[in-house]
Amino acid sequence: MPGQTEAAGVAALFFDVFGTLVDWRTSIAREAESILTPLGYRLDWLAFADFWRAEYQPGMEEVRSGRIPFARLDVLHRRNLERFIPRLGLTGLSDAVLHDLTMAWHRLDAWPDVPAALARLKRKFIIAPCSNGNIALMVDLARRNALPWDAILGAEIAGDYKPKPRAYLGSCEALNLAPGRCMMVAAHSNDLKAAAACGLRTAHTARVNEYGPNTGEAAPTVPVDYAAADLAALADKLGC
Amino acid sequence: MPGQTEAAGVAALFFDVFGTLVDWRTSIAREAESILTPLGYRLDWLAFADFWRAEYQPGMEEVRSGRIPFARLDVLHRRNLERFIPRLGLTGLSDAVLHDLTMAWHRLDAWPDVPAALARLKRKFIIAPCSNGNIALMVDLARRNALPWDAILGAEIAGDYKPKPRAYLGSCEALNLAPGRCMMVAAHSNDLKAAAACGLRTAHTARVNEYGPNTGEAAPTVPVDYAAADLAALADKLGC
Repeated sequence: MPGQTEAAGVAALFFDVFGTLVDWRTSIAREAESILTPLGYRLDWLAFADFWRAEYQPGMEEVRSGRIPFARLDVLHRRNLERFIPRLGLTGLSDAVLHDLTMAWHRLDAWPDVPAALARLKRKFIIAPCSNGNIALMVDLARRNALPWDAILGAEIAGDYKPKPRAYLGSCEALNLAPGRCMMVAAHSNDLKAAAACGLRTAHTARVNEYGPNTGEAAPTVPVDYAAADLAALADKLGC
Repeated sequence: MPGQTEAAGVAALFFDVFGTLVDWRTSIAREAESILTPLGYRLDWLAFADFWRAEYQPGMEEVRSGRIPFARLDVLHRRNLERFIPRLGLTGLSDAVLHDLTMAWHRLDAWPDVPAALARLKRKFIIAPCSNGNIALMVDLARRNALPWDAILGAEIAGDYKPKPRAYLGSCEALNLAPGRCMMVAAHSNDLKAAAACGLRTAHTARVNEYGPNTGEAAPTVPVDYAAADLAALADKLGC
């Protein structure tokens, strides 16, 4: 495990959000249930969340590949929703219901250790999401969960989606910081691998229950500067 | 004076920063003095600040007019600095000193009522700077003065400078809000006039000492939804 010197020169921490900081799966299941149950639907709500999330990477790939111009994640979430719901027998939902479902992504709950750990990390570092979520979505999650961001960075300000280099480098540039002075924090090795390739430092925080009990990465599968059991443990390691 | 119903439907408050929230003039004078006095210079430091600020609008006009591509305010501040200092007999300053002076804009102090008033306003509204300052500059001012922004909006995310419509409209779009659901707060009527022309609501807060005692607008010279003596008074009027 690296010592504290690894963090020398790091001025900003960038955070992945979905999965790393917020529990999208049980939150989406809860929101979908509360919207669709009154309309008479009885579904496996966790499966509903998983179906939606399964459209996430393919939806962004349309942008990353250049097949469609950059569109905010709210727009992609709506498009992805309409793509998978017929397979669950959900047809004829009104525009208002589809919109309400789409906005469920603005109502996700943080993992319990996150708000206090971010407040600790903020004392020493500039902290910002470097997420594929759009600014409005990040603002709503922050207000709901008391995430004390210094700025909202990531895909929308960069105009492209992770793991494309532009998403990371645009976030560094917005802070006038060289990539080596920024550290990406995520529960997903592919995110950290891409950030490291851009010159950022990296920290892995385990979220073993992201897709259900013991489904997440307990440890990184790529070299990282730090690996921690959760965000509070990372704050310990960084001396915050 | 309009009643509280004027704020109905407003979800976000956008803030001008230089002059409205922070006292750039005495802060720049203090910073310039502390950097240049050890080098043997004795100047009228408030005049130094005024000279620099006098280059502000002409510098941005290069971008607004399309004569040069968008460049962050840090870049313009450096260019503007190099433009006026020869007139004060300042020649041969090192790149490090010029950089330190430029970064003085990241070390401005807020007017005393601002941090607490923003915290009050944040309870009811999304709050964000809609400033011509760049993201890194806004982050540093926020961390120095405990300004609890939900996001950093304004010129850099919009790619153009106020009072061009893009700066206001890009900030509204980042929050997925129609302009009528956003209210621009500023001590300068020209900023509010431009925001209103884009469909935003407007609130004027007086900063009568911006350019020295009793130099600022005590009241707006254009129609506004709210006018207040300072930001605390605006929070009162908005029921926060």
